[in-house]
Formats: sequence, structure tokens, C-alpha cells
Amino acid sequence: MKPNHVWLDELSTFEAAQAAQAGTVIIFPVGSVEEHGKHLPLCTDSIQSEYIAAEVAKKTGCLVAPPFRQGICNAGHNFPGTMSIEFETLRSVARDVMSELARNGLNRIIVLTGHAGSSHMTALKLAAQEIVQKGIGNAKRKTRIMVLSDYDFADELKEKLGFPKEDGHAGAIETSRIMAIRSDLVKAKGEASFPKMPRFEVVADPERYFTSGVNGDPTLATVEKGRVMNEYIVEQVAKLVEELRQ
Amino acid sequence: MKPNHVWLDELSTFEAAQAAQAGTVIIFPVGSVEEHGKHLPLCTDSIQSEYIAAEVAKKTGCLVAPPFRQGICNAGHNFPGTMSIEFETLRSVARDVMSELARNGLNRIIVLTGHAGSSHMTALKLAAQEIVQKGIGNAKRKTRIMVLSDYDFADELKEKLGFPKEDGHAGAIETSRIMAIRSDLVKAKGEASFPKMPRFEVVADPERYFTSGVNGDPTLATVEKGRVMNEYIVEQVAKLVEELRQ
Amino acid sequence: MKPNHVWLDELSTFEAAQAAQAGTVIIFPVGSVEEHGKHLPLCTDSIQSEYIAAEVAKKTGCLVAPPFRQGICNAGHNFPGTMSIEFETLRSVARDVMSELARNGLNRIIVLTGHAGSSHMTALKLAAQEIVQKGIGNAKRKTRIMVLSDYDFADELKEKLGFPKEDGHAGAIETSRIMAIRSDLVKAKGEASFPKMPRFEVVADPERYFTSGVNGDPTLATVEKGRVMNEYIVEQVAKLVEELRQ
Amino acid sequence: MKPNHVWLDELSTFEAAQAAQAGTVIIFPVGSVEEHGKHLPLCTDSIQSEYIAAEVAKKTGCLVAPPFRQGICNAGHNFPGTMSIEFETLRSVARDVMSELARNGLNRIIVLTGHAGSSHMTALKLAAQEIVQKGIGNAKRKTRIMVLSDYDFADELKEKLGFPKEDGHAGAIETSRIMAIRSDLVKAKGEASFPKMPRFEVVADPERYFTSGVNGDPTLATVEKGRVMNEYIVEQVAKLVEELRQ
Amino acid sequence: MKPNHVWLDELSTFEAAQAAQAGTVIIFPVGSVEEHGKHLPLCTDSIQSEYIAAEVAKKTGCLVAPPFRQGICNAGHNFPGTMSIEFETLRSVARDVMSELARNGLNRIIVLTGHAGSSHMTALKLAAQEIVQKGIGNAKRKTRIMVLSDYDFADELKEKLGFPKEDGHAGAIETSRIMAIRSDLVKAKGEASFPKMPRFEVVADPERYFTSGVNGDPTLATVEKGRVMNEYIVEQVAKLVEELRQ
Amino acid sequence: MKPNHVWLDELSTFEAAQAAQAGTVIIFPVGSVEEHGKHLPLCTDSIQSEYIAAEVAKKTGCLVAPPFRQGICNAGHNFPGTMSIEFETLRSVARDVMSELARNGLNRIIVLTGHAGSSHMTALKLAAQEIVQKGIGNAKRKTRIMVLSDYDFADELKEKLGFPKEDGHAGAIETSRIMAIRSDLVKAKGEASFPKMPRFEVVADPERYFTSGVNGDPTLATVEKGRVMNEYIVEQVAKLVEELRQ
Repeated sequence: MKPNHVWLDELSTFEAAQAAQAGTVIIFPVGSVEEHGKHLPLCTDSIQSEYIAAEVAKKTGCLVAPPFRQGICNAGHNFPGTMSIEFETLRSVARDVMSELARNGLNRIIVLTGHAGSSHMTALKLAAQEIVQKGIGNAKRKTRIMVLSDYDFADELKEKLGFPKEDGHAGAIETSRIMAIRSDLVKAKGEASFPKMPRFEVVADPERYFTSGVNGDPTLATVEKGRVMNEYIVEQVAKLVEELRQ
Repeated sequence: MKPNHVWLDELSTFEAAQAAQAGTVIIFPVGSVEEHGKHLPLCTDSIQSEYIAAEVAKKTGCLVAPPFRQGICNAGHNFPGTMSIEFETLRSVARDVMSELARNGLNRIIVLTGHAGSSHMTALKLAAQEIVQKGIGNAKRKTRIMVLSDYDFADELKEKLGFPKEDGHAGAIETSRIMAIRSDLVKAKGEASFPKMPRFEVVADPERYFTSGVNGDPTLATVEKGRVMNEYIVEQVAKLVEELRQ
Repeated sequence: MKPNHVWLDELSTFEAAQAAQAGTVIIFPVGSVEEHGKHLPLCTDSIQSEYIAAEVAKKTGCLVAPPFRQGICNAGHNFPGTMSIEFETLRSVARDVMSELARNGLNRIIVLTGHAGSSHMTALKLAAQEIVQKGIGNAKRKTRIMVLSDYDFADELKEKLGFPKEDGHAGAIETSRIMAIRSDLVKAKGEASFPKMPRFEVVADPERYFTSGVNGDPTLATVEKGRVMNEYIVEQVAKLVEELRQ
Repeated sequence: MKPNHVWLDELSTFEAAQAAQAGTVIIFPVGSVEEHGKHLPLCTDSIQSEYIAAEVAKKTGCLVAPPFRQGICNAGHNFPGTMSIEFETLRSVARDVMSELARNGLNRIIVLTGHAGSSHMTALKLAAQEIVQKGIGNAKRKTRIMVLSDYDFADELKEKLGFPKEDGHAGAIETSRIMAIRSDLVKAKGEASFPKMPRFEVVADPERYFTSGVNGDPTLATVEKGRVMNEYIVEQVAKLVEELRQ
Repeated sequence: MKPNHVWLDELSTFEAAQAAQAGTVIIFPVGSVEEHGKHLPLCTDSIQSEYIAAEVAKKTGCLVAPPFRQGICNAGHNFPGTMSIEFETLRSVARDVMSELARNGLNRIIVLTGHAGSSHMTALKLAAQEIVQKGIGNAKRKTRIMVLSDYDFADELKEKLGFPKEDGHAGAIETSRIMAIRSDLVKAKGEASFPKMPRFEVVADPERYFTSGVNGDPTLATVEKGRVMNEYIVEQVAKLVEELRQ
Repeated sequence: MKPNHVWLDELSTFEAAQAAQAGTVIIFPVGSVEEHGKHLPLCTDSIQSEYIAAEVAKKTGCLVAPPFRQGICNAGHNFPGTMSIEFETLRSVARDVMSELARNGLNRIIVLTGHAGSSHMTALKLAAQEIVQKGIGNAKRKTRIMVLSDYDFADELKEKLGFPKEDGHAGAIETSRIMAIRSDLVKAKGEASFPKMPRFEVVADPERYFTSGVNGDPTLATVEKGRVMNEYIVEQVAKLVEELRQ
């Protein structure tokens, strides 16, 4: 297979059969369509995980499944432009995608999501559990699935890069990373904001506590720090690919 | 808004609010991951509808929602690489996407699918019906939804372009169009094949009757004919955008 | 078994066991309760498929399952008297009926529907697919299922009988056939009408474009043409019964 | 409306509108496809409720909806010929039928079932509850629904007609009634049997305790007693029609 | 195991494994939160079945699963304090509980419910049927399940104790039994009431016919009669435990 | 209302109406049936949240709803005695319970769970979201719901009490608290264990990495520390009750 074939669905049926035979690991990138302040695009979560997935594929020779750009949004679900899907919808998409990958023999799967809300993560993990417990598609090789967010790794660099501990949604990390990936989509500098959300109350209008749509300090963002983070995440996910190859 | 902002999710929340206010029409492209013979990629259906949607957006100033690249496949569902999702999954994704668009005020929607199997079309139409009947998101302007395949228009040119009447899946039309859109993904010349599928019987192994994965004559394909078709489809969909603006 | 035993549920449990042992083919007639203009009854679709099924059974010795007279109606769903059921309801009924037939060993099944809307057909086909793919009830003989509308055959005679190409719902064909089956239910002559429905838009009030409830020219209908069509359809379905016996 | 128009779906859309306007009560007959010993047909439950419904309609001028001949069978579900549908399927059919009747203005409904197993009755009652609680279709007149079995009345005559207290499924009552309705479908005399079913245990193979498929004494059956019962039930249901007219 | 270990979930994982190995029978008590007149608490149904279960466990050495105190209420569902859950919710809880018990090897199960409405009973029985038919957890020993109400036995003593035949909800029996189990929760003497509920009509406001919330004569209640009933029921359920041990 | 009336379902319908009128806050305790090492009972999670709820009720005059003792277990789901229910089941129970509380006017709700796995928490939060977004039962007072685990507070004392940072399931905290609540159910001293679970991989057999069923150091547990924690949690939850009263 030629190195530019990073995306599963750019293969022909014949090439897909070869990839399955070769035991290729595959990454399924998931994102969201969600407000990210005035300075970042709605696709912020999506393009981060897709970028990492493609870079890991180039580096390791694994494949990337067609991304799913819809997620379950909580705090930002009433902002203009946010599209939040039902829990069962995300769970079904993830189950069907993984079930079909496993049936095809592409049964070493990394679900890599740029959005990491707890309902969103639970939907992906329940789908993975169902596939793993049913043992779908594991004729010769056991189906193995990892579910993670690129933020599981990004957060490890927070302190080192001098970002505040509370930095999160649309803050210094996300802004830096988007500056490094798609600087054309950064629309402004962004303003720092550290909103206080209700600790336990489940509210219908979370935007009331979160008017900026930002949780962090985007003014600290730099392209260079974005690059450092992206490279670190690529390295870490590449290690997971290796782990799944064994 | 700048003309390069074709994709809804490349907007910020602020820009999305403006687009909704302006009554912008939006196209939701749907595709599939499905075998298309030895010569075409699995994403054949997806890249056609996404290309048309983007071109129409450039021409008319409408927007394009994040595409959904999974469909319900029938005849090809057992070929390597095909990923066919459950009927309810497609219906739920389409319902959630349109419901969120309508809630956002982006309630003049064209669902444009590159895959046009009957279950697939029914899932999309039922989802549209539900949104339209419930009247979601139509505070001031009635929600209006069109559901179509780019093949509804492509087929109108068959005779004029000298293609056989039976030409279909992975045949002269699809091959020409992919040659014009992404020639780098055309992997071979393709061979003509006009399989006889069972007329009424519902079978578990349709590939038995459809060994080539092709229904048509890809040897008749040319870049030029692909361009003619793509331009014609863009014009026709642009007219629908105008119709929805009224 | 005596020839008058056309209907499965007029058999005793003992006779049903014998029929299963004999490998009897069974037809499951489906209809609708839908407006058919001022001149035809709501059961127009139902009585056509039931009539054909019973005639085929008399001719070939196959059986007929208890009919299901509810369907999914689209264009006519808001007319008085129309009863349109949910997609999932039709799918479930069809699945349960076929699953129980297959479990009983009556696993060569023809689903014959007098109503042929695309959602309605998809619900029946998805149900059939599920049974066939799960391989329910095929201990010794593989379960085989055909799904079709009597209109798949009726339309083949349109030109020969001098009916307009666009003739459809409650038009010359349906009126002729009902005249031949249950003339007592034909309430008037009917008037020609060729409504223009929106080509792509999914609307909540299709009756706005379809005020007559007729799509065709019922004034061309004759008993004789109805008989010719019915006989032709019986012959064609009888051939399918033979095909399933092999 | 002419008196021979007992069946809703034999009306035209125009006549259905008239019937709704006139506040016509409608009976929805439900049955089953279930073994009834060696002497009675699988449709035993269906033809009893349909016969009663049609007679009540002739007597009172109410209408009858298209019957549903599938039910939820318990003790007999493994016998040849029995077709038992899922709980959710029956509930959905009943809900959709009643919902559409109510939407049409035919919102005084009697669900009359010839089969009376407890799951079967619960499915029908839950469906009715949903319609009544949601208040579907009751613009001017409140939707009212009764759910009953013709056996609720038949059992009242047991003692008077000299039948044993335990007489039930395929016993003296059912055999007498079928003799009076469709004597051509009575295939033999039947033999008495009073099986002991487990009182509390839920078993997968109830037929083990119920080898005859009969619970009662069919040898006591006579046409005359069948007529007496049928007439009595018709009278009682006719009273319910009157009650719903008020 | 020590005799005070009546409740499954007071065991450690190690002790639970031992109990499963020993083939221990387990009782799953179900109740309701439902009005029981002015004199009895909402938990009336729950504490009866839980008391019986615990006494049977002490007597026979069987175990008791954690009770479920929510049920499906009909006539009383609009009274203050009543909590009526959805049919599917009860069915799912019962299915999951029994499925997990069976998976654990505790697969001789008695579902003992203090509430006995027909929808409530059907939900429990359908859940039991599903487990029994799927054969979950029956590696060496077949899973066996009984579903009953303690009222199946209590009603057998009605005549003997001089209670009226119609005595039911919150009447002489229930009041006597609660006096014997938790006299501190009896809040008043109660008043006799024998309401006439509609025989067949399914109504949204049953409390209209049932203003007292009582169906019976609580003034006849005595502690002594309560004790007699409770002892009798314990004996009878203990016999069922023995039956399941064989 | 007398102070001993802590439990909602020990009230009569009349008393429940009074409580609703008085705007009483209500706590819904949720637990699990899950292995907790050799030294703690399966009900460990349940009795902690129920104890806290009852103490808070005594202190503040709020009510406690009937507990639900089943949860969604992950790492321990294959251990003997664990009962893990389906995601949808927990979500449905929580939705129905909160919906009925809100309908009753008891619409200031604290869901307090002793088990805090991420799927389990998500199910509870999604149910709360649905009630809050639909605005069920908030005629005069807005429905407000908090969802939390008693461990949200217990973990705040870890350092102060000298427990290791990683202490968790069946460790020093849980053991101390059970010693203070139900010392009779502590079956042994427990052994320290800090298993390494796979960071991202979703596995079907987590017990392989978690053989002890303990994550922490139960040898550090003391009754006194348990009391300190319980008192602290009671105080914190009492503050939430006050917050909901405003």
C-alpha cells in the first residue's frame, strides 16, 4: 500500500482486504460540533483528533476510519452552532462502526476523540464493551479496542508548558493546538475566563454560568506550544498502535 | 462571512449565529463506505456528494454541514471494506443532525446523498418527515427539508452522454465523476459487468450474484464526461437552494 | 389437505404440521387502509393482494397467511379514513409473522403487498433480511423469502392495455382491478387527475398537492382489463411459488 | 350509509369522513393464530371476535375496523401452526390503530379480543391507556376506549349451559361457538382434557403439561348452545356501543 | 453460612460464590409505592413481600435478593405519593436482576411481589420467560423461575377469616397483615369502601371512581388475623423453595 | 410530620401530599451489588448512601425515597455476587423515579449514589437532564436536581486522614465507613492491593488485572476515621438540602 493511503475509505475493496490480512491497526477519530469561544471554530475538537490520527498513520502505517464529527455536548449545548446528538445515537454509530471494522478483520481499534465530556466518553466505551464482550469478528485474532481522548495526553504537558491547572475548553491548550494545525481557523486572540459551573446541579441552561464559552486562558497560546503538544500526542498514540500490534 | 467559509463547523459560534440570522440554506452530505469494484475507492459515494455540496456552497453562498460518511449498503454489504450501519442508526443520526440544525435556525436543509439504496433513502426521508411534522425549530420560518441523491440528476444525462441505460454502481457515470473529482483515487480502468440480481428474493449473500461489485461499464468513463455531469448537478442543486430561499 | 384450505389459520394444528412437512410455500398478503379517491374503498390495496394470494393458492396448492391490512401511507396520510402505522410497527409485525412461519417450518415465504410506498416496502424488506440473515427456522431447508407488490407485475401491462404511463394510485389500473374483484365496492366512476407532487421536498401536508387523492385516469377502467391484469399477476406469482418449491 | 357497510375500510375516504362526523362507534377485533386441539382451526379466537363485531355493527350501526389476527400465545406457543408475536409488536399495532382511529375522529373504540391471555390483554390495555392519557384526537369529543374479550361475557353463561367451571381453551364453549359460526371449520368431535399447568413456574415448554392442547370438554358442545352464547355476547357488546354513544 | 445472612447483598463475594455452589434458592421481593388509603403507608405492598421473603429465608436457609420497591400502579396512579414506573422499566429491572442471579449460579428464583396489578404481573412474567427461554446461566442446573404474589395465598384464607369476598386493596387483609408486621406504620383505623370501577373502559382518571383509595373493609382487620395469614403464606412459599431445590 | 418519618414510602398518601405542599427536599439513594474484596459485603455502596441519606433527613427534615440497590459495575462485573444492570435500565429507573417525584410536587431532588463508576454516573445524570429539560412537574416551583456520590465528599478527607491518594474501591475509606455504619458486615481485615488496570483498553475480563477486588489499603481503616468521614459527608449533603430549599 502506498504511504499516502492513510484513510481506510480511500482504499478499494481489494486493498481493504489486504490491509485486514496484514493485521493493520485502525484509528476511529470522533469529534464534536461545539462552540469554542469567539476565537475557535465549531470543529475544534474534530480537527485535533483527525490531525493526530493522520499523523500517527503516516508514522506507523496504521489506517484511519472515516471520522465522525458529531458528539454529545453538555455545557455548550445551547450556544449557536453547537450540534449535540442523543446518547443512543453516538452509542449506535460507534457500535456499528466498530462492529463493521471487526467483521472486516480490522479488529485492533483505537477510538480517538477530541471531545471528552463524560456522557460522550461513556457512549463510546459502552459501544466498545459491547463489541469486545460479544467477541465480534475475532475469528483468529481477538478484537481489541482502546478508547481515549487526545486530551488524556495533552493534559500531561500542562504544567511543563506553563498553562494553568484549570485550563480546559477553548483555553490555552486547545488554542495552541489549533494554531499549529489550522491557523486559518483561529479567528481572534480569545479572552481568559474561568467560569464556575454548578458542582452537582444538573441544569437546563448551563450557558448561564458559562457566558464566554471559554474555560481557560487562550491568551497564553502559541503555535510552538501547540506543535510540542501535537508531537507528544502523536508519539504516545503511536505507542498504543504498537501495543495493539503485538 | 468570507467565501471560503463553506463548512458550517469551520465557523465560530458567533459566525454560526449570523448565518442562522441571514437565513442561510445548508446542505447535509451523506455518503457510504462501500466497495466500488477494483477501480474505485470505498468513499466513492461520499466524495461525490461532498464535492457537489462544496461547489454549490461556493456558487450560492449556502453552507455545508459536517458530512456523514456511513450508509446502509445492500448488494455490496459482504465485500471487504464495506461498512453498513443499522437502519435505526442512520435514521437517528439524520434526525439529530437536522433537529440541531433546525434548533439553530438553519432550517432550510438539503440532504444530499451519494449513496441511494432504498433503505438508505427511506431512513433519511423518515428522519426528515419527523422533523417537518414536529415543526422543530420553526419559530419564524417554517422548517423545510429536501432529500435527494446526486444520482437523481446524474441519471438524467445518461442517454446524452452515450452511457447504457443499465449503467449504475461503479459504472461509467461514477467512474467518470470520480475521475473528475479525485483522479488520484482511481486505481484501474475497471471492467464492464451487468450482473443479474434476484428480482424479488431477499438474500443473505447478494455478492454471489454480483461478484465483480460493478453494475455498468466503467470502460466508457472519461474525465470530460465526469466534469459535464458534476457541473450539471451543481447547477440543479443550486436551483434547489434558490427555491428554499424563497 | 382439501383444496378449499387456502388460509393457514383455517387449518388445525395437526394440519399445519402436515403442511410444514410437505414443504408448502406460503404467501403473506399485506395491504393498507388508505384513501383511494371518491370512487374506491380504503381497503383497495388490501383486497387486491388478498385476492391474488387466494387465487394463486387455489392454483398451486400453496397456503395464505392471515393478511395484515395496515400499511405506511405517505401522500394520503392526512385524508379521512387513512390509517398509517409507524415504520417500526410494520417492520415488527412482518418480522414476527415471518419468524413464526419459519419456526413452524413454513419457510418459503412470499410477502405480497398491495401497497407499495417506499417506506412500506423498506419495512417489509428489512424484516425479511433479518430473518434470512439470522437463518431462523432453516433446520433442513434454507429459509427463502420474496418481497414484492402485485404492482410490480400490473405495471408491466400498462402500455398493452392503453393506460397512461403515469397512471398510479386510484387510477385506471386499480379501478379496473377492483371492478373485477369487488365491483360492489366501486362507488363512482372516478375522475382523472395527475397531480404534481414536490420532487424532493418532504412535506407535512402532501394532500395540498394531491387534493383529488387520485393519480391516474380511472375513467379508462373496465372490468375486462381488470380481469386480464389479475389473471396475469396470478400467473406470475404462481411462477414464483414454483421457484420457491425447488 | 348503507347497512351493509359494516367494515370501516370498505368505505371511501368521503364516507369515512361522514362516519367520523356522525360520531360512529367502532369495534377493533383482535384474534390469534393458535392451536385449538385437533378439532378446531388456528383462527378460532379470530373468527369469534370478528363475528361478534360484525353482528353488533349490523344491529347498532357502528363500524368495524380491519381485524388483527395475531396475538400473544403462552401455553400453546410451541404447537405447530401457532404464531405468537412479541409483546411490543401487539402493543404497537394496537396503539397505532387506535391512534389513527382517534385522529380520524372515530374516537369511541371497543377493542374486542377473542384471545384473552394475560400478556395479550395487558398489551391491549397499555396501548389504550397511552391513547387515553395523551388525549389523542379528542378535539371536541373525549376519546373513550373499552378493552374486553368476548369471553368476559361467554363465561357468564357457563353454569346456565351446564358446562364445567374449568372449561376453557378449545373446550365446550369455544367448540359450540365455532359450530354456530363456521361449522365447516370444525374438524372432529374433540376430546375432553383438563390439564394441570404449573401454578407459578414460568416454563419454556408449557406443552409438556398440555399435550392435548385442550382445556375443557368439547364433547359437550352443541350448535344451539353456541348460538345462545353468541346472541348473548352480541347483546352485551351492543349495550357497550350504546354506552359509548352517550 | 450464618443464619442471619438472609440478604444476598450482605454476603461477601466469597460467600456469594459458596451460596451459588450450594444451589441456594433465592427470593426476589418486589413491591410498589402506592396509596393505600388514609390508614396504611405507601410501602404497604413492599413490606409484606419483604417480610415473607425474610421469614421464608430464616426458615429454609434460602437467600433474599435486594428488593425492588417500585411497581406499575393503575387505579391509584394519580393519588399523592404513588410512584408508578413504566412497563418497560419494571420488565428491564426484573430481567437484569434475574439474568445476573442466573449468571451467578443462583438460578432457582422466586419472584415474590406484594403488588399484583395485571400489568405489573405481566412485566415480571415476561422477564422470567425471557430468561427461561434463553436458558441463561444454566450450565449444569436448569434455571427455574416462579412468579407469584403473596396475595395468591392470602386470598385463600379470606372466607375462613370471615372477610368479604370483594376485600382487596387496603382492605381487611392488607390492614391485618401490616398490623402484624409494622403496626407503627398503621396510621388510623381505615374506613370500608367498595368502589365500582368501570368494568371495561380504560380511563385516565380512575381515582374518580375510587375516591377512598380503599377496596374492602379495613375495620375488620386484627393483628391476630394478620399473623395467621403471614404464617400461612410463609409456609406456602417455603414449600415452593423446597420444590425448587429438587 | 413526625421526625421518625424519614422514608417517603412510610408516609400515607395524605402525609405525602402534605410533604409536597411543604416543599420538602427528597434524597434518592442509589447503590450497587458489587464485590468489595473478601472483607466487605456486596451492599457496601448501598448502605453508605442510604445511611448518609437517613442521617441528613433526620438532621434537616428532608425525606428519603425508596433506595435503588442495583448499579452498573465495570471492573468487578465478573466477580461472584456482583449484579450489574444494563445502562438503559438504570437510566429508566432513575428517570421514572424522578419523574414521579416531580409529578408529586417533590421536585427538589438529590440523587446520592454510593457507587460512582462513570457509566453509572452518566446514566443518573442523563435521567436528571431529561427531567430538568422537559420541565416535568414544575407548575409553581422549578424542578431542581443534584446528582452526586458520597465519595465526592469522602475523597476530600483522604489526605487529612492519612490515606494514600490512590485509595479507592474497598480500600481504607470504604472499610472505615462500613466499620462505622455496619461493623457486623465487616468480615475480615482486608489486604492492601493497588492493581494496575489497562489505561485505555476496554476489556471483557477486567478481573484479570484486579484479582483482589480491592484498590487501596483496608488495613489502614478505623471506626473513628469512618465516623469522621460520615459526619463530614452528612454536613455537606445537609448544605445541599439547604441550597435546594431556597
